[in-house]
Amino acid sequence: MKFNNRNIQLGVNVRIGKNVRIGDNTTIYDNVEVGDNTIVANDCVIGEPQQAYYFQANYTNPETKIGANSFIRSHAIIYAGSTFGEGLTTGHRITVREGAHFGTNCLISTMVDIQGNATFGNYCRLYSNVHICEFSRLGNHVFIFPYTIFTNDSRPPSNVCIGPTVGDYTIIAVHSVVLPGVNIGSNCLIGSNSVVSRDVLDYSFAVGSPAKVTRDIREIGSREKDGSQYPWMYNFERGMPWQGIGFDAWLSQQQK
Amino acid sequence: MKFNNRNIQLGVNVRIGKNVRIGDNTTIYDNVEVGDNTIVANDCVIGEPQQAYYFQANYTNPETKIGANSFIRSHAIIYAGSTFGEGLTTGHRITVREGAHFGTNCLISTMVDIQGNATFGNYCRLYSNVHICEFSRLGNHVFIFPYTIFTNDSRPPSNVCIGPTVGDYTIIAVHSVVLPGVNIGSNCLIGSNSVVSRDVLDYSFAVGSPAKVTRDIREIGSREKDGSQYPWMYNFERGMPWQGIGFDAWLSQQQK
Amino acid sequence: MKFNNRNIQLGVNVRIGKNVRIGDNTTIYDNVEVGDNTIVANDCVIGEPQQAYYFQANYTNPETKIGANSFIRSHAIIYAGSTFGEGLTTGHRITVREGAHFGTNCLISTMVDIQGNATFGNYCRLYSNVHICEFSRLGNHVFIFPYTIFTNDSRPPSNVCIGPTVGDYTIIAVHSVVLPGVNIGSNCLIGSNSVVSRDVLDYSFAVGSPAKVTRDIREIGSREKDGSQYPWMYNFERGMPWQGIGFDAWLSQQQK
Repeated sequence: MKFNNRNIQLGVNVRIGKNVRIGDNTTIYDNVEVGDNTIVANDCVIGEPQQAYYFQANYTNPETKIGANSFIRSHAIIYAGSTFGEGLTTGHRITVREGAHFGTNCLISTMVDIQGNATFGNYCRLYSNVHICEFSRLGNHVFIFPYTIFTNDSRPPSNVCIGPTVGDYTIIAVHSVVLPGVNIGSNCLIGSNSVVSRDVLDYSFAVGSPAKVTRDIREIGSREKDGSQYPWMYNFERGMPWQGIGFDAWLSQQQK
Repeated sequence: MKFNNRNIQLGVNVRIGKNVRIGDNTTIYDNVEVGDNTIVANDCVIGEPQQAYYFQANYTNPETKIGANSFIRSHAIIYAGSTFGEGLTTGHRITVREGAHFGTNCLISTMVDIQGNATFGNYCRLYSNVHICEFSRLGNHVFIFPYTIFTNDSRPPSNVCIGPTVGDYTIIAVHSVVLPGVNIGSNCLIGSNSVVSRDVLDYSFAVGSPAKVTRDIREIGSREKDGSQYPWMYNFERGMPWQGIGFDAWLSQQQK
Repeated sequence: MKFNNRNIQLGVNVRIGKNVRIGDNTTIYDNVEVGDNTIVANDCVIGEPQQAYYFQANYTNPETKIGANSFIRSHAIIYAGSTFGEGLTTGHRITVREGAHFGTNCLISTMVDIQGNATFGNYCRLYSNVHICEFSRLGNHVFIFPYTIFTNDSRPPSNVCIGPTVGDYTIIAVHSVVLPGVNIGSNCLIGSNSVVSRDVLDYSFAVGSPAKVTRDIREIGSREKDGSQYPWMYNFERGMPWQGIGFDAWLSQQQK
């Protein structure tokens, strides 16, 4: 019942790919490209104009690009001037401000709030209510669990905003805070309810407020088998590009 | 102005009870039952199809049941395959995924996010932005205060997800995290901003990150009278089934 | 495309000022006043009726007032019986319950949840997902950063609810909890992920769970210049009434 072409509004220069479905009550503003086979469910706004739209007569909406084979659930608000690689999946009621750039195959879950001007690699997974501040930079295959917040102003309110960075394959558990300008390496695990106030080196498990490194992630045992759970890519493949072939085989394909 | 029958969409095999009111712009999908005297406000989606709906031609929507005398505020998204006993009350913009089962007289406040495949007893109260993971099991008269999160994966991301359990009459204060598989007993109180990492026995007050039991709840004084505030059922009755008669009288009625 | 007068619903005694724009699918209930030059974007509900509306035939909607020169972004739900001074700006999907009173030039960001019966001074800034409980009282120029929660019941659930108070120019960082009845003075800074359980005196920096005062805010260095960052009004002016003239000049104007 969502795809009746009821009350759909399309702006100027909206380029819709093949086999795209658009839900009822969805609005797509000017200068938006939607890739082939993508579903935009009901009650979404794609290419939401920036603030100047409301106050300037000659406003031009920046380009917005939604990759092919994406699935945007209902009530999403995606601002103009953001781009998403193919295979995007979202939950409901996401908000993404302008200037966010996502790689391919990312997940943006229900009520995630992206403040814009941030970059994300491929296969990032942002779970419910994650909040990412401006100027954040996340690598590939980064998982951020619910209600975790990135911050960029160490002397609030000030004029100096520096986003955190996160390396590939790093996992941040629920209800954590990453403080401004902190660099978290690759293959790290941050425990629940942590406040990450200093840089964290690759392969570290850090937890607490302020977070302290308590061990190497390779020392954390699995619940499924003998040996270590981390690096997790050897033990988890659902939705990842190495599904069915294993991480090493995929990695060697990539490196060719 | 909400009940003008404007833009209401009803699917196949939608069974609406007597004296039900449905708000404008609300969609009810196939195979949903709405009990007598229930109000579904504007802009809701009841029986939201699961993901297969979008990709499989022969998708059948699972049964969804909303009990009688319920009041669902605007912008709720309730997936197909969940059930709610009578007397449900919700805030705005709730999200409930498939396979959630609620007893009678529950409260699901504004922006609560239920991940599905979880069970709730009677008279549970989930306040704003509570996030309950899959496989959680809550007893009766459990109160969860805002921004508290239940988690189910102790080695994220992994394939082993075990939800927490919570016993009857337990209270969890704001901004807490309950870790995977933790069993919190009945009549417990968890303080604000706690991380509950180990089982908590009945009648315990636990607080901190990780939460430690600091005393028996019966040692916590009331702010209204001499003596203890807990078990709270002797001091609080608003909206509870013992309202007007007292907890002991109600309990003895139940035990007959 | 938002201002096509599509599906706008206006109640009785709705007073719309000059040069107001109202977005598609927005509903304004009875007894709402919207000041001159205000924008109410699409899919908003202004003057949302209180619960009695649904159950009482003779319900009268309380007065709601939105000041002039305001900008309410999409999907806001503002209950009847709240008032906002001029220059209000909101994010998307805010919820404000009845009996909230805001001064002039406040910011209420995306998904903020105001429980009602709370007061706010001028130039308050509530960032994403801030949750303010009933009976809270905030002064002027108070900044509350994302996912911070105010609470009012120290023995949940009980019948004794006492909101926190916050003095002028105080800043509360992300993911903090302010416990019931706590008084935070003016010119304070509360660090991230704190639980404020006791009163905090003017000019204090407090952090931790429970929060402890670790120093005077005037001892916290700036990242932009030599010397202290706080009081911040000497180092930050964007959107503040002293923009372009400096804090001292503005202050002396005010005191005339």
